[in-house]
Amino acid sequence: MPAAGPRCPGVRRRLPVLRWLPSYSLAWLQLDLMAGLTVGLTVVPQALAYAEVAGLPLQYGLYSSFMGCFVYCFLGTAKDVTLGPTAIMSLLVSSYAFHEPVYAVLLTFLSGCIQLAMGLLHLGFLLDFISCPVIKGFTSAASITISFNQVKNLLGLQGIPRQFFLQVYETLRRIGETRVGDAVLGLACLAVLAGLRAMKNSLPRASRGEPLAARVSYLIVWTSATARNALVVLFAGLVAYSFQVMGSQPLTLTGSIPRGLPAFRLPRFSMDAPNSTISFRNMVEVGDMGVGLAVVPLMGLLETVAIAKAFGTAAPGSCAGGGVSAEGLGVPGRVLFPWGTAVNAQSGVCTPAGGLVTGALVLLSLAYLTSLFYYIPKAALAAVIISAVVPMFDAGIFRTLWRVKRLDLVPLCVTFLLCFWEVQYGIVAGVLVSGILLLYSIARPPIKVSEGDVLLVQLGSNLHFPAMECLRDAICSHALAAFPPRSVILDCCHISSIDYTVVVGLAELQQELGKHGLSLAFCSLQDPVLQVLLAADLEGFQHFPSREEAGEALGFPGFSPRVGVPRLLWCGALEDEDGGPTFIRPPQLQCGELWGGWLLGR
Amino acid sequence: MPAAGPRCPGVRRRLPVLRWLPSYSLAWLQLDLMAGLTVGLTVVPQALAYAEVAGLPLQYGLYSSFMGCFVYCFLGTAKDVTLGPTAIMSLLVSSYAFHEPVYAVLLTFLSGCIQLAMGLLHLGFLLDFISCPVIKGFTSAASITISFNQVKNLLGLQGIPRQFFLQVYETLRRIGETRVGDAVLGLACLAVLAGLRAMKNSLPRASRGEPLAARVSYLIVWTSATARNALVVLFAGLVAYSFQVMGSQPLTLTGSIPRGLPAFRLPRFSMDAPNSTISFRNMVEVGDMGVGLAVVPLMGLLETVAIAKAFGTAAPGSCAGGGVSAEGLGVPGRVLFPWGTAVNAQSGVCTPAGGLVTGALVLLSLAYLTSLFYYIPKAALAAVIISAVVPMFDAGIFRTLWRVKRLDLVPLCVTFLLCFWEVQYGIVAGVLVSGILLLYSIARPPIKVSEGDVLLVQLGSNLHFPAMECLRDAICSHALAAFPPRSVILDCCHISSIDYTVVVGLAELQQELGKHGLSLAFCSLQDPVLQVLLAADLEGFQHFPSREEAGEALGFPGFSPRVGVPRLLWCGALEDEDGGPTFIRPPQLQCGELWGGWLLGR
Repeated sequence: MPAAGPRCPGVRRRLPVLRWLPSYSLAWLQLDLMAGLTVGLTVVPQALAYAEVAGLPLQYGLYSSFMGCFVYCFLGTAKDVTLGPTAIMSLLVSSYAFHEPVYAVLLTFLSGCIQLAMGLLHLGFLLDFISCPVIKGFTSAASITISFNQVKNLLGLQGIPRQFFLQVYETLRRIGETRVGDAVLGLACLAVLAGLRAMKNSLPRASRGEPLAARVSYLIVWTSATARNALVVLFAGLVAYSFQVMGSQPLTLTGSIPRGLPAFRLPRFSMDAPNSTISFRNMVEVGDMGVGLAVVPLMGLLETVAIAKAFGTAAPGSCAGGGVSAEGLGVPGRVLFPWGTAVNAQSGVCTPAGGLVTGALVLLSLAYLTSLFYYIPKAALAAVIISAVVPMFDAGIFRTLWRVKRLDLVPLCVTFLLCFWEVQYGIVAGVLVSGILLLYSIARPPIKVSEGDVLLVQLGSNLHFPAMECLRDAICSHALAAFPPRSVILDCCHISSIDYTVVVGLAELQQELGKHGLSLAFCSLQDPVLQVLLAADLEGFQHFPSREEAGEALGFPGFSPRVGVPRLLWCGALEDEDGGPTFIRPPQLQCGELWGGWLLGR
Repeated sequence: MPAAGPRCPGVRRRLPVLRWLPSYSLAWLQLDLMAGLTVGLTVVPQALAYAEVAGLPLQYGLYSSFMGCFVYCFLGTAKDVTLGPTAIMSLLVSSYAFHEPVYAVLLTFLSGCIQLAMGLLHLGFLLDFISCPVIKGFTSAASITISFNQVKNLLGLQGIPRQFFLQVYETLRRIGETRVGDAVLGLACLAVLAGLRAMKNSLPRASRGEPLAARVSYLIVWTSATARNALVVLFAGLVAYSFQVMGSQPLTLTGSIPRGLPAFRLPRFSMDAPNSTISFRNMVEVGDMGVGLAVVPLMGLLETVAIAKAFGTAAPGSCAGGGVSAEGLGVPGRVLFPWGTAVNAQSGVCTPAGGLVTGALVLLSLAYLTSLFYYIPKAALAAVIISAVVPMFDAGIFRTLWRVKRLDLVPLCVTFLLCFWEVQYGIVAGVLVSGILLLYSIARPPIKVSEGDVLLVQLGSNLHFPAMECLRDAICSHALAAFPPRSVILDCCHISSIDYTVVVGLAELQQELGKHGLSLAFCSLQDPVLQVLLAADLEGFQHFPSREEAGEALGFPGFSPRVGVPRLLWCGALEDEDGGPTFIRPPQLQCGELWGGWLLGR
């Protein structure tokens, strides 16, 4: 999209604030103010909750929520995006935090460095290799993991381990120790949150034509539904405070949170242990950050890009820049706040300036509200988290994939199941599996062979080097097996580029057929492919614009592929019962199905 | 190809000896006998030489040469193939041998196990991912490495390190210490070998019509040229023996070689060190076999398959079986003997029984000739090796790739250069680089956009999931950037299959265009793609058999893409100067070149 003006496009691109600030108006300010406030009321309780998910002291959720707002205001282009901690990133960080912020801060800083490097080296295309089934499998598993992780807080259980399977086992074993107060409050909060959410979803959009009273009441309902997290936490805190005043406390409380901000400094690259100092290398190794540093930066970018896209103002470069900056300054937690973003979009935010209001609200609560946070019951925060992550579980995806593309169930299930073991291993395994499926489909492209006086071979897709051997085997076995052996016409209309390995393979194929007195004629070559083949100077290279002309040149003027026996061949294994090549059918199709107009053979 | 008879195809497939043994005749025996002898005369000196390359005691070359012959006789299908050590495999093994056969035997055994597992798991397709430039780069580098490795023996220098760069440095530094006797003999042997090879290549094929004398003299020249290694070694041995008898020895000799065979037993999985026992795990770790175990089995299979294919009787499964068996029994060195194979083909070998003769010859030399091997000068063996590996260097490949496909120079150069550091790292890096280039070309397919009343978008190749974002960005930026925004016809004629990520991407694209009141119409969908899209139940999905019908349905009856501005777009970077997507041209094409009938845009 073009910039707002033609002058200094480079500066404008790097500082998008220059695009909207000069034309900022009072009407915009009003909208931004209101949107920023509403978002802030969502951000504060969720920030506390996500810090709990990440296994960090709760104030770290707030620390990580304001910096992104300020930085993105200057560097961001997507007005709907709010930077801050998310459930997904908190879960990823939790594997490496060990309840020790130093590790989380280091991981965040290093992830920011990696994202910055990816941006500078133009490695953004790596994101394209995280396929949809992997993302769905991961978010669905994360939804279950995070929810179950909060069940212990909902029930008031202490000392439950972090690992999912141990957690399930311990939680079920000790379910008898449930504290009634926590459980009742938690379930009540969950019910209220679910009710407010349902109410908001069914709320009709207020139109300008309606009377003022209707519009005001709409606004009240909308605001309370939108700021439901803040309302629920406030209500639960009041309950806890009443109990405290009355002298009995049936609820597990958050406890004291330090007031104000930590010192603004670089992250620590070494740590003081009781008897010694843990070096940077040891921190990375002991923390086992290796896989984390591969997964966290990519998932962070992916989330930012996905949300920015969902709101139709894609600007991945800038998003990444914002993310990097927030992290580079040593703020843990990180990127993007999908709910805040959704709220932004709905509350009519005009410019990234709404972020300033949100950030200010977070700072104010750090300055004046931390003493009140003491009374927030853990069960209420657990309810906030659970109601936020449950919608991420997508049960329908399994049925959809079964209907649309069964092969994609493999990466989905691999990711989904392994994520319960360790989230980052699930993602890595899912990406590897979908990569292997991709490479396999490239190594074994669909090959159509139609028998006749001349063998007509057509490739269903592009011809990359791993597919050459398969094509060669298919052609040789068919051309030489029949009696008399038949010449071959290779229809290349779907081939858009070839590499040297393919050229060598085709040359060898031509030689092999030549030894038996047969010809190999190419037809429908695209220009770049033809140029490569001409440059390779193949001996006896024949090319014709169409199949018919090729058939004529090979001595079969009335040539047409025999229509009675169309077959789709899909080479899979090395040899069949008799030592010849086997052709198995594509895994996603059934026998008798149509493929590009041809009946699918055995 | 069909088996000889229809009965028991399974047994016949597993024991190919049953195919040719029942019909074996005396005439075949004569031919096999002669071929086996000629091959044997080549095998014995080369076996000694390759043991030297692998850094093992020379007798191990012989040990590894006979077992393959016997096993392959029963399990092999390609009559031209002789199993035994090769220069390439010897070089690969040398990185792990440390002059200690136990390591080499263990590596060989484990490689055999891996090959067996690959066969059982049908992982043969992994070989397809080793592209031609990688093989060429590797063999060219190996040719230089192996040759230079022998220069020290040719010059009679002692104590030169194994690493290539150190070797070059030390050899040049100590060139003054050259022993004249070794150097003169070595160079003489090299000259004789080169002469005999040239003679053989220029020898006309004897025809049956010629007189007996001509045919006999032809046979003599052919045999001496073919068995030139044996002749040269014999001659050099005689020279050394004469010097020994005369009491002075200007030559470096091979030294004593133990007679007979080692005990037939499983490889050792632990080793006795002076003060302790090295465990299996330590052997694998200390020997740093990790990368070796990834590279050696693949390269072994690749060599076998390549040679069997070159002689037109491809049966990779069985070749691998033979290789595995030979190795599984603990014979180091391994696989295939390209020269023996070439000799087999030329000397008219009939059946794999020729291997029995060759094997017997090796066994006989182990039993009776080891005392004579004492006198073989090292310089003569060095000459045999150098003359065997120099033809593997292919200087033309650089020029060919520059002409045919410049992008393939990248994996070639990476492999070639890194192989001088460590051969196995060179191969791994080359495979990775060509894999990345492959994935990149899949993630950034050629997209043709022709502007007109309606935007016509055509994909040049198949659409896999990593390409979806690129396509979406290209379409959005073009459809929405113009005024008024234009509907889109997506021509899918080259797409043969799509996955769920692509389906989701297309659905989102359709939604996004729909938000601006635009349509997305598909045309020329192949049946499997259409089925997937119908199963996905996209909202507002429109499909038409041809572009014209799609244009008509969108309200542009006379629709045709504007011919004046054909452009090839190739999306590469995330954004250009103004924040919009950039389109860079395909790296292998120049501006103004033709691509599929379209002029290449900037």
